[in-house]
Amino acid sequence: MPRYELTYPKEVHNTVKRYNSRASYALRTIHSLVNEAQLLHVSFQPDNSPFPATLPMIGAMGSFERPSADTGDVLDLYLHGYVSSRLINISRTKTATEEGKESDKDKPPAGLPVTVAASHVDGLVLALSPNAHSYNYRSAVLFGYATLVTDVSEKLYAMEQITNSVVPGRWNQTRVPPNNAEMQSTSVLKVRIVTGSAKIRTGNTHDDRCDLDDKSVLDSVWAGVLPVHTTLGEPIPASYNRVNAVPEYLEQFRTDFNTTSLGKAIEAAEEPAEGTKDTHPGDA
Amino acid sequence: MPRYELTYPKEVHNTVKRYNSRASYALRTIHSLVNEAQLLHVSFQPDNSPFPATLPMIGAMGSFERPSADTGDVLDLYLHGYVSSRLINISRTKTATEEGKESDKDKPPAGLPVTVAASHVDGLVLALSPNAHSYNYRSAVLFGYATLVTDVSEKLYAMEQITNSVVPGRWNQTRVPPNNAEMQSTSVLKVRIVTGSAKIRTGNTHDDRCDLDDKSVLDSVWAGVLPVHTTLGEPIPASYNRVNAVPEYLEQFRTDFNTTSLGKAIEAAEEPAEGTKDTHPGDA
Repeated sequence: MPRYELTYPKEVHNTVKRYNSRASYALRTIHSLVNEAQLLHVSFQPDNSPFPATLPMIGAMGSFERPSADTGDVLDLYLHGYVSSRLINISRTKTATEEGKESDKDKPPAGLPVTVAASHVDGLVLALSPNAHSYNYRSAVLFGYATLVTDVSEKLYAMEQITNSVVPGRWNQTRVPPNNAEMQSTSVLKVRIVTGSAKIRTGNTHDDRCDLDDKSVLDSVWAGVLPVHTTLGEPIPASYNRVNAVPEYLEQFRTDFNTTSLGKAIEAAEEPAEGTKDTHPGDA
Repeated sequence: MPRYELTYPKEVHNTVKRYNSRASYALRTIHSLVNEAQLLHVSFQPDNSPFPATLPMIGAMGSFERPSADTGDVLDLYLHGYVSSRLINISRTKTATEEGKESDKDKPPAGLPVTVAASHVDGLVLALSPNAHSYNYRSAVLFGYATLVTDVSEKLYAMEQITNSVVPGRWNQTRVPPNNAEMQSTSVLKVRIVTGSAKIRTGNTHDDRCDLDDKSVLDSVWAGVLPVHTTLGEPIPASYNRVNAVPEYLEQFRTDFNTTSLGKAIEAAEEPAEGTKDTHPGDA
């Protein structure tokens, strides 16, 4: 654990301008949101298109150099991909082209610039007026440079981190280590993080004074929060599964996941009001 | 309903190269995924940053010109934002700068190029080997040009669509119409869609022959799917709520939402195997 809470620097691309009381630059907050997300949205700008490319991917924060580092430390993001995918191919090109130039301070760092978003919805905030509707949500975004992991030990480390980010401890409960064909067909991207930010909205509804003072509005519109939480259902075994009882670590994971997810949704709705008027998320 | 199923054209930026049996270009499939998503991830490339910007936003498909159009028709995407946000400011600039140039065929269309991603996780696919792990998921991406909606009637239409995409029928159950201050403080973006694609993974685990033939692996590793579904919890009224009973349309929405979400997760896990080997999502 670091000696004090580290924060990412505020740059033009990560500074949250709107509702900045909801913003956080703490590494611990941002990294936790990324690790909790089942899917990350990874975006990058291809050369041959006016549109960014956005891919849903699985990833995990980690430090190969210092595996004991905790969530609040300086970490890299490892992403799983397939060797022939466009993102991986571009990252490979950028890695090869720009390596060796790192000593040149005027050049951008090696790798493909990527933006990684992790978002959780905790509740639908249903106010008296449509404009005061909002979501309770926790969203994080990281900016960094993606390169292909070529070192075999680091690749194995990253694969283990990513697998365990899906189900804690799963790696050691599967057929490991990967064989040569698997190592070759799998690519791992490492994103060296430059900066990031998080934005969190909690609380129940906030409405304008004019609506709060209007008896006919108050008597006709239900105002409140519908909590939103992700649930892991009853395990459905594969046709060839021969382990009859669902293992304890999986049942424990389900229970913990469902309890935490519901708990965060309820807790978010019950947080004290911030006193700001709401609009929808995304208003950075 | 259109006479036949429309599909988006395959362009360099939307063609799914990996596992293309999982890909769909059908407007109906893609638009439904966007409408079902609670959050959309909207990405665009700012001029002053190497990194795309990604914002979680709320949106809905619609057609102001032909409100009776169904999900399989040619539609626009309406996004809700706040008037001072960076995305809106850039779109306003691009709208102003490029308007009137639409007759020039060599120029790009007016508006800011944006990429919109909508992703749903339906299950964690836990195979015998880490490499064969996957997710059941449904993800859609749309590419288009965002402009500010300036016409008041269209803006009202879009606000109603967006509010009703959070809870069906909610608009008419709130204090409407928005007053002048609300209309001025709210901005709506319209994305004219150029193309898009969807990618869907269903089924239980697929493992390599070497693992399926290995008794020690089969006897020690649990293989199967943990269904993942979003749940709407018990409504939590605002401190100032005076409608004591939760209205029927809200309870019905909760029930329908939860039933559909669980149903899709189970259905996805029970789909017949495709026979392809898996890797994680995002391998486009």
